[in-house]
Amino acid sequence: MLPALRTEVYEANLELVRRGLVIYTFGNASGISWEERLIVIKPSGVPYETMRPDDMVITNLEGRVVEGSLRPSSDLATHLTLYRAFPPIGGVVHTHSRHATAWAQACREIPCFGTTHADYFCGAVPVTAALTPEEIQSDYEANTGAAIVRLLEGRDPLGCPAALVAGHAPFCWGKSVTDAAHTAVIVEELAAMAWQTLTINPAAAPLPAALRDKHYFRKNGPKAYYGQKA
Amino acid sequence: MLPALRTEVYEANLELVRRGLVIYTFGNASGISWEERLIVIKPSGVPYETMRPDDMVITNLEGRVVEGSLRPSSDLATHLTLYRAFPPIGGVVHTHSRHATAWAQACREIPCFGTTHADYFCGAVPVTAALTPEEIQSDYEANTGAAIVRLLEGRDPLGCPAALVAGHAPFCWGKSVTDAAHTAVIVEELAAMAWQTLTINPAAAPLPAALRDKHYFRKNGPKAYYGQKA
Amino acid sequence: MLPALRTEVYEANLELVRRGLVIYTFGNASGISWEERLIVIKPSGVPYETMRPDDMVITNLEGRVVEGSLRPSSDLATHLTLYRAFPPIGGVVHTHSRHATAWAQACREIPCFGTTHADYFCGAVPVTAALTPEEIQSDYEANTGAAIVRLLEGRDPLGCPAALVAGHAPFCWGKSVTDAAHTAVIVEELAAMAWQTLTINPAAAPLPAALRDKHYFRKNGPKAYYGQKA
Amino acid sequence: MLPALRTEVYEANLELVRRGLVIYTFGNASGISWEERLIVIKPSGVPYETMRPDDMVITNLEGRVVEGSLRPSSDLATHLTLYRAFPPIGGVVHTHSRHATAWAQACREIPCFGTTHADYFCGAVPVTAALTPEEIQSDYEANTGAAIVRLLEGRDPLGCPAALVAGHAPFCWGKSVTDAAHTAVIVEELAAMAWQTLTINPAAAPLPAALRDKHYFRKNGPKAYYGQKA
Repeated sequence: MLPALRTEVYEANLELVRRGLVIYTFGNASGISWEERLIVIKPSGVPYETMRPDDMVITNLEGRVVEGSLRPSSDLATHLTLYRAFPPIGGVVHTHSRHATAWAQACREIPCFGTTHADYFCGAVPVTAALTPEEIQSDYEANTGAAIVRLLEGRDPLGCPAALVAGHAPFCWGKSVTDAAHTAVIVEELAAMAWQTLTINPAAAPLPAALRDKHYFRKNGPKAYYGQKA
Repeated sequence: MLPALRTEVYEANLELVRRGLVIYTFGNASGISWEERLIVIKPSGVPYETMRPDDMVITNLEGRVVEGSLRPSSDLATHLTLYRAFPPIGGVVHTHSRHATAWAQACREIPCFGTTHADYFCGAVPVTAALTPEEIQSDYEANTGAAIVRLLEGRDPLGCPAALVAGHAPFCWGKSVTDAAHTAVIVEELAAMAWQTLTINPAAAPLPAALRDKHYFRKNGPKAYYGQKA
Repeated sequence: MLPALRTEVYEANLELVRRGLVIYTFGNASGISWEERLIVIKPSGVPYETMRPDDMVITNLEGRVVEGSLRPSSDLATHLTLYRAFPPIGGVVHTHSRHATAWAQACREIPCFGTTHADYFCGAVPVTAALTPEEIQSDYEANTGAAIVRLLEGRDPLGCPAALVAGHAPFCWGKSVTDAAHTAVIVEELAAMAWQTLTINPAAAPLPAALRDKHYFRKNGPKAYYGQKA
Repeated sequence: MLPALRTEVYEANLELVRRGLVIYTFGNASGISWEERLIVIKPSGVPYETMRPDDMVITNLEGRVVEGSLRPSSDLATHLTLYRAFPPIGGVVHTHSRHATAWAQACREIPCFGTTHADYFCGAVPVTAALTPEEIQSDYEANTGAAIVRLLEGRDPLGCPAALVAGHAPFCWGKSVTDAAHTAVIVEELAAMAWQTLTINPAAAPLPAALRDKHYFRKNGPKAYYGQKA
């Protein structure tokens, strides 16, 4: 089933390794076929070195495995919550990449300090509120997704394709799992730059709105003029 | 003698090189056969580039060499103290990896700032008290082990598989030497993340107990549901 | 047209990848033939992995494409402004390299803290003033160049071959695009060293003028004695 | 002349590249034959990629080239001053490695924060006083060496095989050029650890004397017991 999506999800997972965002069995990427309403996701705790495309697990939107002999990522329920709440998205990526995780652990949003950031996010990479003990003790993974959904309330999820979960790490999404993995790499880079910016100037201010919007809309939306014509 | 353990210890030592935790002749890993009551340990001061499995040294629990023509690691007595005090463990790894060593030098435990940490430690990676001049001047390496043993008093050593020695560096252990090396890599990553977390937010607080326990027990203990069924 | 310059520009772009200054489609390098009054520049948004020398775009000094089927870098107008204002230069390089960008985001010049810096810059790497909303909303890229030109007013541009654009990132230039790419690598290294210098000693002072001048003129200008005789 | 030393000096220079201590033409290593009273040193400004053993330059202790067609390193006079003042040494290495240079730029000695440091230095890696304008304007390179010699006055130079030149970068030395290059790598690692130690705990104290001495003399001097018997 879904051989092309299976390969794309597999490659997106490997891209996280190649870009240095994950070690051992950290991280997970998934993609969805909205037509089939099926999700392809990395299996839980399988080392990247030996992982094969066939190891990807296919589930429905309720999380029932429909193909694959391995258990899906333990974060599956977070992915499912995001897919159900954000219908325009086609992929979800979760990593514990070093710099982005440091911001999540600091319970701080990543401020939009520069144009590198504004090329991807028209504002901060937001951070969720802490989950309550009740949310943690029951349906933890789904509630992690729900905290992200609440954080994005009223926004186009493709206009803010990542969030930090407080005390945890980033989740990223996009039109495809390839895009979500790309965003995960970008968020890691933005987190590293922002950390150093703060050290150099603890009073550093976010980018003025005019410059932020200029860069964001130069690369995103109908008036974008970065890159080659489609 | 013990060819399988010898190879495993050799490979664990090389894993430290591959993961960037050691340079030159830094670091040492050992494993124990509880059945034979024999330890296999890296030789002292031999470069990793030329080290062979046959260079591993086999000693008894009193540190007497029973096989091998090279001198064992100068930290052998620390390893032996840990094995004698922590019978469930099968391997010990010591490195001077950069970030974890910085925390040891700062004489600070690594706080459990996030779920990456809580996946492996249900609380801080603790730091020992300073050794007294007497402990340093006589039986230094054994006393280093004793400081770790005192620090872990009353705890299951497999529930806290690493400690920082104040002013020195981390020691890690586990069911096997492979596990101990894995923990050494994780501790280095946690140390890096915690350092950056503190820089971003000097008032960063440890993870709430509910989230810490959720992650720890999701991956450890009888109710773990991370990874594949055994 | 201009096959040698085309190859040199292509190679300078790749050098940015090899030195870790750019990821994905970040960054752009261009070179000029003053004889032909033509610029060779990287195309916009093309991944380095698949980019070929033939993909370079040739434009005139007004930015009209005279050869090439791809769109030129979206930062072309900044390059053109620099070429028109700085006739002695032969190449321009723009990156979002991590450490230099952190200084730009902090809106701080990189102080000349040491001789490594003074080997290349006889003073700080300066940072522009912020652009006004009007400058951003109309002719943004040309105005970015104009802000750099104002910053360098009255100076020999080859005596200060880089500047940080506030909230954005570095632009570098030189006698050739190869030199400009070399400077981009150096600025990144200087930015990293300066960041760490500040952390170690928040009151660190710039190098005394005598030592700064000694190093600068040891390596630059008519009395230079570093390197081999021409 | 001196083919073995020539090769050793060439290899020591390349080791600096392999360990990430130098970029482009940064850094220089030399070795001495005390019997011949001749120095073999890296040529000035030659890229490592194309450098060959035959490019090494041989000079006498007054700096006159006795073999080789290239100009010697512009720091030759610093090397010569160190050789003349420190007869037990056999090699000198100078780099602008990132972390050690940051300490030099901060005009701060690298405190002996841990046992990694104490394995090599029985105390801080010291930093010179600033050179006077007169010392800079005339015989700068020799005066740089003289500042190091003054700093080490009354000490065995092999007991403190490196120093930071204020506002500049580290110089290292040893029984051989191979040893000096090894020390340069260690100093870079110690500088990185010390920088992070200070960030984690701005009040971090140097290692107590007992522990510092224990580690230093465990690895150095007549009672050393680290490594294999000679």
